[in-house]
Amino acid sequence: MDKNSNLLVVSAHAADFVWRGGGVIAKYAKHANVSLVILSYGARGESNDLWNIEGQTLENVKKARHEEIEEAVKQLGVTDYEIWDYEDYHMEMNSERMDRLVKKIREVKPTDILTHGPKDAFNPDHEAVSKFVFEASVLSTSNGVRLDGYATAKQARLFGFEPHQSEISDFKPEVILDITETYEQKEAAMNCFAAQPHLIDYYGSRAKLRGNHARRCSGEKEYRYAEAFTRFFPYVGGEFI
Amino acid sequence: MDKNSNLLVVSAHAADFVWRGGGVIAKYAKHANVSLVILSYGARGESNDLWNIEGQTLENVKKARHEEIEEAVKQLGVTDYEIWDYEDYHMEMNSERMDRLVKKIREVKPTDILTHGPKDAFNPDHEAVSKFVFEASVLSTSNGVRLDGYATAKQARLFGFEPHQSEISDFKPEVILDITETYEQKEAAMNCFAAQPHLIDYYGSRAKLRGNHARRCSGEKEYRYAEAFTRFFPYVGGEFI
Amino acid sequence: MDKNSNLLVVSAHAADFVWRGGGVIAKYAKHANVSLVILSYGARGESNDLWNIEGQTLENVKKARHEEIEEAVKQLGVTDYEIWDYEDYHMEMNSERMDRLVKKIREVKPTDILTHGPKDAFNPDHEAVSKFVFEASVLSTSNGVRLDGYATAKQARLFGFEPHQSEISDFKPEVILDITETYEQKEAAMNCFAAQPHLIDYYGSRAKLRGNHARRCSGEKEYRYAEAFTRFFPYVGGEFI
Amino acid sequence: MDKNSNLLVVSAHAADFVWRGGGVIAKYAKHANVSLVILSYGARGESNDLWNIEGQTLENVKKARHEEIEEAVKQLGVTDYEIWDYEDYHMEMNSERMDRLVKKIREVKPTDILTHGPKDAFNPDHEAVSKFVFEASVLSTSNGVRLDGYATAKQARLFGFEPHQSEISDFKPEVILDITETYEQKEAAMNCFAAQPHLIDYYGSRAKLRGNHARRCSGEKEYRYAEAFTRFFPYVGGEFI
Amino acid sequence: MDKNSNLLVVSAHAADFVWRGGGVIAKYAKHANVSLVILSYGARGESNDLWNIEGQTLENVKKARHEEIEEAVKQLGVTDYEIWDYEDYHMEMNSERMDRLVKKIREVKPTDILTHGPKDAFNPDHEAVSKFVFEASVLSTSNGVRLDGYATAKQARLFGFEPHQSEISDFKPEVILDITETYEQKEAAMNCFAAQPHLIDYYGSRAKLRGNHARRCSGEKEYRYAEAFTRFFPYVGGEFI
Amino acid sequence: MDKNSNLLVVSAHAADFVWRGGGVIAKYAKHANVSLVILSYGARGESNDLWNIEGQTLENVKKARHEEIEEAVKQLGVTDYEIWDYEDYHMEMNSERMDRLVKKIREVKPTDILTHGPKDAFNPDHEAVSKFVFEASVLSTSNGVRLDGYATAKQARLFGFEPHQSEISDFKPEVILDITETYEQKEAAMNCFAAQPHLIDYYGSRAKLRGNHARRCSGEKEYRYAEAFTRFFPYVGGEFI
Repeated sequence: MDKNSNLLVVSAHAADFVWRGGGVIAKYAKHANVSLVILSYGARGESNDLWNIEGQTLENVKKARHEEIEEAVKQLGVTDYEIWDYEDYHMEMNSERMDRLVKKIREVKPTDILTHGPKDAFNPDHEAVSKFVFEASVLSTSNGVRLDGYATAKQARLFGFEPHQSEISDFKPEVILDITETYEQKEAAMNCFAAQPHLIDYYGSRAKLRGNHARRCSGEKEYRYAEAFTRFFPYVGGEFI
Repeated sequence: MDKNSNLLVVSAHAADFVWRGGGVIAKYAKHANVSLVILSYGARGESNDLWNIEGQTLENVKKARHEEIEEAVKQLGVTDYEIWDYEDYHMEMNSERMDRLVKKIREVKPTDILTHGPKDAFNPDHEAVSKFVFEASVLSTSNGVRLDGYATAKQARLFGFEPHQSEISDFKPEVILDITETYEQKEAAMNCFAAQPHLIDYYGSRAKLRGNHARRCSGEKEYRYAEAFTRFFPYVGGEFI
Repeated sequence: MDKNSNLLVVSAHAADFVWRGGGVIAKYAKHANVSLVILSYGARGESNDLWNIEGQTLENVKKARHEEIEEAVKQLGVTDYEIWDYEDYHMEMNSERMDRLVKKIREVKPTDILTHGPKDAFNPDHEAVSKFVFEASVLSTSNGVRLDGYATAKQARLFGFEPHQSEISDFKPEVILDITETYEQKEAAMNCFAAQPHLIDYYGSRAKLRGNHARRCSGEKEYRYAEAFTRFFPYVGGEFI
Repeated sequence: MDKNSNLLVVSAHAADFVWRGGGVIAKYAKHANVSLVILSYGARGESNDLWNIEGQTLENVKKARHEEIEEAVKQLGVTDYEIWDYEDYHMEMNSERMDRLVKKIREVKPTDILTHGPKDAFNPDHEAVSKFVFEASVLSTSNGVRLDGYATAKQARLFGFEPHQSEISDFKPEVILDITETYEQKEAAMNCFAAQPHLIDYYGSRAKLRGNHARRCSGEKEYRYAEAFTRFFPYVGGEFI
Repeated sequence: MDKNSNLLVVSAHAADFVWRGGGVIAKYAKHANVSLVILSYGARGESNDLWNIEGQTLENVKKARHEEIEEAVKQLGVTDYEIWDYEDYHMEMNSERMDRLVKKIREVKPTDILTHGPKDAFNPDHEAVSKFVFEASVLSTSNGVRLDGYATAKQARLFGFEPHQSEISDFKPEVILDITETYEQKEAAMNCFAAQPHLIDYYGSRAKLRGNHARRCSGEKEYRYAEAFTRFFPYVGGEFI
Repeated sequence: MDKNSNLLVVSAHAADFVWRGGGVIAKYAKHANVSLVILSYGARGESNDLWNIEGQTLENVKKARHEEIEEAVKQLGVTDYEIWDYEDYHMEMNSERMDRLVKKIREVKPTDILTHGPKDAFNPDHEAVSKFVFEASVLSTSNGVRLDGYATAKQARLFGFEPHQSEISDFKPEVILDITETYEQKEAAMNCFAAQPHLIDYYGSRAKLRGNHARRCSGEKEYRYAEAFTRFFPYVGGEFI
């Protein structure tokens, strides 16, 4: 990756991008460019901890999540991010939202888009976002989808996050990326969501397991931590990789 | 790819490597290293044309196939090749053959192995070879599989040829490689098997179709011809590709 | 097929029915009956060539597509066709559109319906149309779905087009039909969409590949060109076919 | 079907062809030609009832099964049948057995071959036979597989029986055939295996269920009993069926 | 099961719960607690018999279905049931309906939820209901989905009915339950839908087939009738079962 | 589980049963009965560490593995175990070995059998053992498979270990068992294989991840560690579990 690599990340809820792709995002933030879109605060579906506080309000939940996000992106080195504040659980898309994302894609001109994969056995929002981003990426390349001032983008590569329970979500780790270099940053970002210690522990363990897989599949001993992704389209290139 | 890339190709029959991977093999022969093992002449299963000749003998069929192979590898620029002359249709493996291939792998120390994929709806030999090569590659890395003078190899990446009828063989084009640079060589190599003009036409059309897919998936306009492969293990690396 | 065979074709965009089923449609037009419904002009998603013209307007794009369709159906011998002019990219269905298609099915009383298959890795519109036609076909047989003047139809057989990239769309060629007899008509119809020469070349190659598969699976040497389809329901009949 | 239709049936055990295809076999015996190969008496794996008799011997079990087979084929109208008397549970194939079946196929020149499908969750013999018949059918067409006096056959269509527990054997009913015309014969043939009344009841119920599916998929009200099969290769023909 | 077991059943149409789960529902009604929600009368899609009556009206169809339901639940011993009277064929969900089901789940606090499985090859309503119930069950556990007076529920186990044509709906019988004890009640409940004798016969045959599978998989001879279900999540417990 | 529960474990190599099922085995050893068959020492394929010692011999490797096994079974509380000392990498079965396992099954009369699942992307031995145990379990129930002094067994339930890389081995966690009670014993048993610290770490992390899944799927907060398995046949019983 280099300064011509643009990674667009689309995250359904406040912390998805950290658990599922924080290590890779930090690498791209360091060596290339990252644009991050967070579609919701996850106020309804992924803030159980905050709602356990007596007298909690939606406004306060969003505020708390906002602060955590601000802290987490800082740890990852991401400066270009937007929170679209859609309602979650469940999330519904429409033409206006589609146009907004198409514009974003045409603006960023990503080489790679990272978002949720097509199936998540416990999270309908993630499935909706996956379909939404895929469709927007297709529309973004079509000359007939006219959006004033936004010229068409070249087809980006699409990659999907590993869901929380991979096998029952039919996830296959097609792309396993070494994150040894930025694992500490990921850990720091995870710690910004302090009310969810079980998840910090969980995704720490997973990074080690994927590191083991990375070593076994490649024979490279130095890979210690890794993240796994699925890809939407075949790899196209000039040689075996 | 560069001079440190070693591609080991294992082909079940005389011409499989040409139809299914000739373009990529020519690229590796040009820029890197290629070792080719042809397990059989395909005398029983893939020489219908020759057997139509009155008074044909097995010896003559093999001789004819041998000459075609010699001519085809020359067109592809491959100089390191072996023909193991196993009986085909159907092909059976045993411990001795397994040891032989393990030794070959340990000798070549391939970064990449290219052979048949796990399923071929019309060709049981191809399925047997796929399993054979996969197992040999696993054994080649194990220190306890003692073969005098042959030190263990690092786990190679494995890739599978596209079978003749892809969908009913459950083939997925996970890796599509541009062969525009060497397509003329592939065509020349295919023409060495002159008795099978329908296959030359067939694989010519397929190279164009895969070229179209390569352009559509990547947005790269200059890809004109391509070959598709499946991969046995996930991609492992440092960034999205 | 004979004069009692009614084929209803539902095409998402202007040219889908030509690329994907032109040969078979021409056969049914010649020996049986064809009714064709084109849901959109593909003005937004499949008219990149036309939008490259300076000062282009939606109205002009539709006009150009309309002329091409008129010419193409003539080449295929289809006289009964309708263009419903829905917006494409992306296409959304509703109750009113559902009722319209149910009425159409009850009117045509098709023995066979040909439309898009359930998955298309690059084309969400095709997936939406597949679901739409399937549901309409179910509703068309139900006596409780009251539509004044439109008596229920018998369950039609449903068949799906081959998508552009078959394997990554999970397409299986369950039904391969010989189109040698009408291939010239298909070629003429494809040539009506002159701004897309790469597609004409692509679908020409594909017809030859499917012809090869047809010969291999059946042993019939005279099949030169073919089209492949998926089927929605099992084959039911009196003997092996 | 007519007098040019040759159906070759290969049954792993004594009664498989009756439970799984008796109705269709009786139709072909009536209107076309049937050749039946029974590979084993099922003496070890499918004769629990007989082994419950005090002092039972292998010889007696085979004798009892032989008489039942003789009676059953008479009920189905099959006169050309052979029992190869291989050991069952489990059944192993070798080159000699392969040659024997290839010869049989070249002799019969079947238009259709009916045998076990590729997976059976409770019966490894059925899986072995499926692979065996498929490979023999491929070899039978190859000119290089020289067997004195047996000229190559044209590629036959292959169909697979429905296994006892269909879903966990990944069976899909791709071809559902009406057997109303010969259902009484099937029932009579099933009654020849009097020691297995639970199976007679079971396959009677199944014929009615498949009859219901046949009516629902086709809209043909007169189908009362049916049998379901899987197909090994795509359908190839001239029109939708 | 005991008095702490709460089974919530959600049925798309009037009689689905009887055909597909009547035996199990009767067991839970006898030994534990059952709450039944019937989403529609099936007036449009599953009342062909009633619409064949000259001058039939929607009101009358619903009235007839209502009486049949009342009689059937009595036979099964179910006293807690609701009919939500949504339009069927096709059924569409929205936020208000989602809230209603979330409230119901939070009220019932089911240990187990039984509804339609994710795919039904001939019935889009069943697929819509499956998704609807799954999403509601997820929302019911989330503290941030605020519904006055309805505290969150613990995650219930979800099970899916066997669809009418199981294999083409990708159904796997993951859970097979013995219903010998209550089969007579199921039969009596099926007989309440007297206008559909072919279905009574069909589901009677199926109960016997699943009884055979239950015996074969478990070795328990006393299982005579059974019903099969799919499960949405893995089994979690303390020992093999 | 209770004293009538007999668990038969069949492990391909020396330590498989510890990494993949040690927690559950310890529970059965404590509350029920366990019989353990270890088919090989894994001397060739899973002893890389030992072979790194200068002048190592096969005999010494086996001796070292033997001591580790003895220590590990002690930690798990297993007293009934056998080591069959077959050659590994790769492992081949034959009739004699099949008879031996059938006898073992008939002797133990297991209610549950635990062994390798059908697919393992990196370990052909595991696949061979899975097929071997499945077939033996089928033969063990058949009255016609005569083995002097060994009466037939009732069909046992079969469960498969989670392979090292689950997703690319198509593993689904169908049965997740809580091992909180015996996790310390598992850890102690893992520590007996001191030369493989990376595996101890790996399977420790995995037990925590599966514990998280167990909590999420069941809502039971007290599950801390778990092991996942696949099941070969459907669950059969009297109620939802």
